[in-house]
Amino acid sequence: MAAGPGQPLDRAGAGDRPTVLIASPLEEHHAARIAGAFAGRVDTVYRPDLLPPIRFPGDHGGSPGWRRSPEQQREWHAALRRAEVLWDFPLGESEPLLELAPRLRWVQTTSAGVGQYVQRLGLADSDLLVTTASGVHAQPLTEFVFAALLHHTKRVGHLQDEQRAHRWERFCARELDGQTMAIVGPGRIGRKVAQVARCFGMTVWAMARAHDPDRAAALGVDRLFARGDFHAMLAGADCVVLCAPHTPETDNLLDREAIAILKPGVVLVNIARGAVVDEDALVEALRAGRIGLAALDVFRAEPLPPTSPFWDLPNVLVCPHSASTADTENAKLTDRFVRNLGFYLDGRLDRMEPALDKARLY
Amino acid sequence: MAAGPGQPLDRAGAGDRPTVLIASPLEEHHAARIAGAFAGRVDTVYRPDLLPPIRFPGDHGGSPGWRRSPEQQREWHAALRRAEVLWDFPLGESEPLLELAPRLRWVQTTSAGVGQYVQRLGLADSDLLVTTASGVHAQPLTEFVFAALLHHTKRVGHLQDEQRAHRWERFCARELDGQTMAIVGPGRIGRKVAQVARCFGMTVWAMARAHDPDRAAALGVDRLFARGDFHAMLAGADCVVLCAPHTPETDNLLDREAIAILKPGVVLVNIARGAVVDEDALVEALRAGRIGLAALDVFRAEPLPPTSPFWDLPNVLVCPHSASTADTENAKLTDRFVRNLGFYLDGRLDRMEPALDKARLY
Repeated sequence: MAAGPGQPLDRAGAGDRPTVLIASPLEEHHAARIAGAFAGRVDTVYRPDLLPPIRFPGDHGGSPGWRRSPEQQREWHAALRRAEVLWDFPLGESEPLLELAPRLRWVQTTSAGVGQYVQRLGLADSDLLVTTASGVHAQPLTEFVFAALLHHTKRVGHLQDEQRAHRWERFCARELDGQTMAIVGPGRIGRKVAQVARCFGMTVWAMARAHDPDRAAALGVDRLFARGDFHAMLAGADCVVLCAPHTPETDNLLDREAIAILKPGVVLVNIARGAVVDEDALVEALRAGRIGLAALDVFRAEPLPPTSPFWDLPNVLVCPHSASTADTENAKLTDRFVRNLGFYLDGRLDRMEPALDKARLY
Repeated sequence: MAAGPGQPLDRAGAGDRPTVLIASPLEEHHAARIAGAFAGRVDTVYRPDLLPPIRFPGDHGGSPGWRRSPEQQREWHAALRRAEVLWDFPLGESEPLLELAPRLRWVQTTSAGVGQYVQRLGLADSDLLVTTASGVHAQPLTEFVFAALLHHTKRVGHLQDEQRAHRWERFCARELDGQTMAIVGPGRIGRKVAQVARCFGMTVWAMARAHDPDRAAALGVDRLFARGDFHAMLAGADCVVLCAPHTPETDNLLDREAIAILKPGVVLVNIARGAVVDEDALVEALRAGRIGLAALDVFRAEPLPPTSPFWDLPNVLVCPHSASTADTENAKLTDRFVRNLGFYLDGRLDRMEPALDKARLY
């Protein structure tokens, strides 16, 4: 039986020292910090030879085509069988996770939006504790939002064209100051986006699942909209930032009707999940020139197929689901994991954060 | 004799009602606001037919090649002869301004950095009152700084290349968070840049003419450097923003030696004046790849000649001296002018702002 929140963890059946397995690519110095933090109380298994190669700092995915040899796969499964704690969900397994890792009690993910994934793994009703990367990506995602927004508003593409032509012609750009941004999902990411938007002089609106107009100030936004006023919010926004978790409630939230209501020339930034948007309707609106810029970091199908119309639309900026990746990411995640590991070992499961709510899926 | 600051203006020799002449392109509704603000006390002369056509909102320049007919030029000079107040310096005159406009007592400029221009016009020792656009451009210039900085840091150029190739390959960008920005000239513009930089989590340094380390907090920066520590500041900065006025002290401030000291990969943004930088040394550093990005809104020769090496350098973003231009600019300048005009008519010259200090040239 799993220990309840705040109860000392009963680890009797799990052996004297829990095994922590690093299950996605991680730089050696971060792994060394994890192994060293509670060296006498934990066995840390770090086998980069059994993990995909690191392609860039903060790479948690697997290189396409990378496979373990049969011998490596046997070693890997042996490590999973011992693991009580995982740094990240292991990718590419066909068997149920809790059969591969029967001792598993806690997974620290390197992603924030893992609710749907946990459900697909059939773990939504399990006792498994899942802590996420929620918040770690707020800064790089906020920077991506403003990179896209300023690129459009300050007409950097126009500057590049003029520069290629060696043409000096003075022009007038718009300002963020005075524009209205609508944030769909004012969680940790949305609140950071809101903070910077207000610093630029923007008016910030948001729509939250739990609607309470009085929460606007606490969230750092000028006005909070109820789900029923979603279209009214969209109609007044110069810029819409999607950063809600993907749940049954947000699935296809920006549907054809919502897209039709957007202001002409609007900037749309999707840093949530592709399934939050009706992509066919979006492509139509983009082709009709009704959208100023769609900066899309996420898509229904990833990698985005080479035949997708998004690639060639002049008012689209495609980002390969990398807006959240920053060279500081693993250092921040390692800090979080070490802190959570301390609480875990002390049986203070209630202090571990941020824990995935497996009912709400975020 | 001109009235001293705060003394009631002696307007006896100037006729009962002063004439305000709109001397650079301005949209009709702004001119109407000026004419209507003190209709009984001022004659406003607005003759768009005698001014260059407006090419974009906030256009205060003249279209190249535009000329008045001889008859128009006669009308224009007659208007100048009557003018006591000018909205902007008239461009393209070869005769001394005070001979063309002998009644002239006050010019409201549409630019901030007019000190050197006023000196070239031979007006530095005159009694002419000059109020400037200082501060009006802080917002659009700040937005330009971050458009350039985020374009580079978030690798938007790389995204564009990948998108053209329909290539989906995850990657890692850097973050502004944690970087150090050095601001040369923390005036109204520099302080706004500093405010946004801190909002992004950057450490902000500045070098000011009047050095007093205790002023750092008042200026909203983390550390203030003396002129003698300029090189030390440059050596530690990931991003350098030039926004100092052009004065004899800042002429060629970023010289060859200073450029050599910049961090490899630095982002340099020049929104000051071209003459603040040794352009030959900058081109060499850019060619050697020692500069990550130079975002240049100003140049020693403007328009930038078609043969300039800046056009084709991949680590340069050329802006045709338009970073300060925004579609809200003339509304803000009109507000300022109307406010100053009220003080002028009441003889409260001390309240008119911001006045150009003709000794300091800013």
